[in-house]
Amino acid sequence: MNIAFLGLGAMGVPMARNLAAAGHDLVVWNRTPKPDAVPGARSATSPAEACRAVELAITMLADDAAVESVVFDRDGVLGALARGACHLGMSTVSVGLARRLADAHSSQGQGFVASPVFGRPDAAAARKLWIVPGGTAADVARSRPVLEALGQGIFPMPDAPGAALAKLLGNFLILATIESLGEALALAEKAGLDPERLLEMLTGTVFGSPIAKNYGKIIATTAFEPAGFRLPLGLKDAKLALAAGEELNVPLPLAGLTRDRLLIALARGRADWDWSGLASVIREDAGLSPRR
Amino acid sequence: MNIAFLGLGAMGVPMARNLAAAGHDLVVWNRTPKPDAVPGARSATSPAEACRAVELAITMLADDAAVESVVFDRDGVLGALARGACHLGMSTVSVGLARRLADAHSSQGQGFVASPVFGRPDAAAARKLWIVPGGTAADVARSRPVLEALGQGIFPMPDAPGAALAKLLGNFLILATIESLGEALALAEKAGLDPERLLEMLTGTVFGSPIAKNYGKIIATTAFEPAGFRLPLGLKDAKLALAAGEELNVPLPLAGLTRDRLLIALARGRADWDWSGLASVIREDAGLSPRR
Amino acid sequence: MNIAFLGLGAMGVPMARNLAAAGHDLVVWNRTPKPDAVPGARSATSPAEACRAVELAITMLADDAAVESVVFDRDGVLGALARGACHLGMSTVSVGLARRLADAHSSQGQGFVASPVFGRPDAAAARKLWIVPGGTAADVARSRPVLEALGQGIFPMPDAPGAALAKLLGNFLILATIESLGEALALAEKAGLDPERLLEMLTGTVFGSPIAKNYGKIIATTAFEPAGFRLPLGLKDAKLALAAGEELNVPLPLAGLTRDRLLIALARGRADWDWSGLASVIREDAGLSPRR
Amino acid sequence: MNIAFLGLGAMGVPMARNLAAAGHDLVVWNRTPKPDAVPGARSATSPAEACRAVELAITMLADDAAVESVVFDRDGVLGALARGACHLGMSTVSVGLARRLADAHSSQGQGFVASPVFGRPDAAAARKLWIVPGGTAADVARSRPVLEALGQGIFPMPDAPGAALAKLLGNFLILATIESLGEALALAEKAGLDPERLLEMLTGTVFGSPIAKNYGKIIATTAFEPAGFRLPLGLKDAKLALAAGEELNVPLPLAGLTRDRLLIALARGRADWDWSGLASVIREDAGLSPRR
Repeated sequence: MNIAFLGLGAMGVPMARNLAAAGHDLVVWNRTPKPDAVPGARSATSPAEACRAVELAITMLADDAAVESVVFDRDGVLGALARGACHLGMSTVSVGLARRLADAHSSQGQGFVASPVFGRPDAAAARKLWIVPGGTAADVARSRPVLEALGQGIFPMPDAPGAALAKLLGNFLILATIESLGEALALAEKAGLDPERLLEMLTGTVFGSPIAKNYGKIIATTAFEPAGFRLPLGLKDAKLALAAGEELNVPLPLAGLTRDRLLIALARGRADWDWSGLASVIREDAGLSPRR
Repeated sequence: MNIAFLGLGAMGVPMARNLAAAGHDLVVWNRTPKPDAVPGARSATSPAEACRAVELAITMLADDAAVESVVFDRDGVLGALARGACHLGMSTVSVGLARRLADAHSSQGQGFVASPVFGRPDAAAARKLWIVPGGTAADVARSRPVLEALGQGIFPMPDAPGAALAKLLGNFLILATIESLGEALALAEKAGLDPERLLEMLTGTVFGSPIAKNYGKIIATTAFEPAGFRLPLGLKDAKLALAAGEELNVPLPLAGLTRDRLLIALARGRADWDWSGLASVIREDAGLSPRR
Repeated sequence: MNIAFLGLGAMGVPMARNLAAAGHDLVVWNRTPKPDAVPGARSATSPAEACRAVELAITMLADDAAVESVVFDRDGVLGALARGACHLGMSTVSVGLARRLADAHSSQGQGFVASPVFGRPDAAAARKLWIVPGGTAADVARSRPVLEALGQGIFPMPDAPGAALAKLLGNFLILATIESLGEALALAEKAGLDPERLLEMLTGTVFGSPIAKNYGKIIATTAFEPAGFRLPLGLKDAKLALAAGEELNVPLPLAGLTRDRLLIALARGRADWDWSGLASVIREDAGLSPRR
Repeated sequence: MNIAFLGLGAMGVPMARNLAAAGHDLVVWNRTPKPDAVPGARSATSPAEACRAVELAITMLADDAAVESVVFDRDGVLGALARGACHLGMSTVSVGLARRLADAHSSQGQGFVASPVFGRPDAAAARKLWIVPGGTAADVARSRPVLEALGQGIFPMPDAPGAALAKLLGNFLILATIESLGEALALAEKAGLDPERLLEMLTGTVFGSPIAKNYGKIIATTAFEPAGFRLPLGLKDAKLALAAGEELNVPLPLAGLTRDRLLIALARGRADWDWSGLASVIREDAGLSPRR
């Protein structure tokens, strides 16, 4: 398939490489040009140039502002994509932006599938992402071969805002896991238990999800640097989850608690830490040092 | 081994039966006599009578008050157990009581192992409990054959208060899971997503612990009755976790949030619901009915 | 002074009347024309028409969106006001909008004073408002005669964003008072105390601020309708306080708690209640009816 | 009147002196004898000795444990007080203990009035206490001359537990005031406003209760030492308020928030600070130093 791939960050590069390896015909674009990032792909100088002759335009960008700019600006996706082509938006964005994108593309006779992913760069490289596409059945169907080249499992949601929400709720659950393990391990440590041994018990019995194992290990060893997912990005997603709740009059006090923890971590100068670094604030509330 | 087994409730009966089946010589006692509950076991008329000639006394009782009464009352375990014998306390109790029991038995030349378990009655019957013993190395060692007849895995903690705390933290993590899934699924439902389908995505990817699968299913279908673990018992454990934190100046705001949810559920008359029924309060806060 | 007065709502009408009565030469504008609202004042058909020949333009509008539109739209204040004239913005707005207005007017050679007020319509009519102006010393000084015709006390802040923040913090403190009295009186009522008598004790001793007396009375009698200040407006201000905190990495958990209460009240259909109706949610959490 | 006064702490001494000055016939007792603390009073060597021949026994002690010991121990008030005499308990105690005391004295044919006070030692010395008596109408009536010699205002509650609760709710409202002003002033300071000037505006307009003025000043100047009321005592009262709520299934999330703040302050070694020092934790959450 002819595909435009916009956004060559830590996630975008391995994803684009996998698509090229799967035999797709790729044109790539990045705000800061990276001409050699994806072997076999052509480079475009603007989103519009990249999108003009493709069936599918994929965006994998940092946040709402980046997506808005790349799609709605003069040289953006919306104006350049052909009628009948489809935009596959794989960034984590607000529910409101997913809705706005679906409406805008629909009004241009284009398709739109919000298709956020779970997984870090190593999972992207290994084609092990979990993908949550939301759009019309036809648009999801034609995106499927591409999604299968990128991930290990596909869980369709009924529409684009639903897919955006599902992703935000997943990130909220990660924050909730960090908060709950953070509280448990801080108390355990202060009570004289070995956090790693307690964690082994917990994740070796009934609490053993991949998320609990992965983040529990970071928290128990306080290995908050280097960041796998930077703390300000986690804060952004906590806010987006809260905003999705506010839109429907649904309070999310646990999301609010984690939002506050992340703000405190930023107030203490930890913008470069992993988002699991919110547990450092829990430690300090217990009278422990931020890191062991 | 000659064993006294005190407490023939929903958990105690299958556990005692497994011990009898494993060939141990059992004398049992229950506040309300249940003479035929454990085939092959003798019945005693008081804790003291049960404990007089045994190497090991096991208690599996409802709460701190029940354990205190059975151990410290005139006809209790403490006064009747021989020097050198050991008390294996498998109830979920406060950290403070675990410490007090360890001290009291030690002053009598008796052993004490706090040995709480994870698992419901069906797991007890199937010898699938997870067991967290805490005591001296020698006392844990001599309890081990008994524990192996009851569970599928044993995770020793350094002492009795540590074992009690590990269990309370486990129950806190269950409450945290209920809270986080409750918030996520309430917002999803209000946004028009199918909670069961969303849950399938979440637990089919990176959030799939046994606890998340089990309680997620209950919450998504709002099947809060009949209770597997009654709501007031969950509240009791939330309070014990908070008390353990207060003792060490460790705030646990997420535990406090769930404590409040459970209080609200009780204020609304749901004492007979499962503790996962705290999610009914989350639903009402979102403007949804308590059950679908 | 030649004054344009934009916004003839429940607050604007009595304020404009007081200015006319004080001898100022007034031209008024309202989105929905109200030609006879202010005796002696001329009516303009657009903000621009109203502002063209005045020394001072006063805005008293519902929210950020209304102010943005009236100031920045083609026929708005910014384009019409003469160099050297001043905009006195008396609406409750976000810190961010106050900053943006100060910058925009400054770049046009115009003055800007953010000058929010404390007080309800009856206080406005009685010239009993408390006014918190923030701008350059010169701009505040030339606004002073006008402010003195409107209120009983003037508390200058160093700049426009500071004045906007001071007002939002005041509204946050009202929400905090409602929350704290709501919790106290709900527990008292459930314990069999008479809430009104308890309140009399509290406000008759050391808790007797005007806010505590006024809102305490409403809460004790659950007189949440008719609204003096509608619940969604209170929610808006709680969000603006939280946003001001987020901008500076300052968590405000008590503001977050009241935000959640207000969301719950809206989810239960209470958009027409007074913002003190957040106490109805506290009552329901205690198992009481929303109103006595 | 013949009066026994038990408890010569910072509050008890000035109160006892005022009673002696009012012409009452006083016998005093303190755990650590203070023979010259109250001119004109005799000293007893035990609570029982002090109580044997009096019409009224007043207790002014630190906490539940002290009151329980002085009343229920072998040489305590309960056994020594004559039938028909009355115990006036002026300490701040739990609702549960107030109930238990009322029951115990009643079963001995004695009266009991829980009669907690608002005010610090300087108010006690100046006879400016606010007093909240709760007991039978007859017992409150006969206590009245004594109460009038101690305070400036008397607000009867229907019974002893009600009076205990009213006092705890008052202390909860002080904590709520500290929390709300702490959040507001921390954000203001970080936004560049002068906290003292903002406070002047707030308490000079509609937020001006004695509590807000007094504690606002401490918070704005971060004068957390020396303590007027030590932080661990504030924590004790926060816990008693929460316990009163738990007994009736009434969650008090704002009380819970302040409890957590106080725990954090203790975890950071601030046991000697004033309870308003909870605001130091708010400051640190905002990235400010604990004190300016």
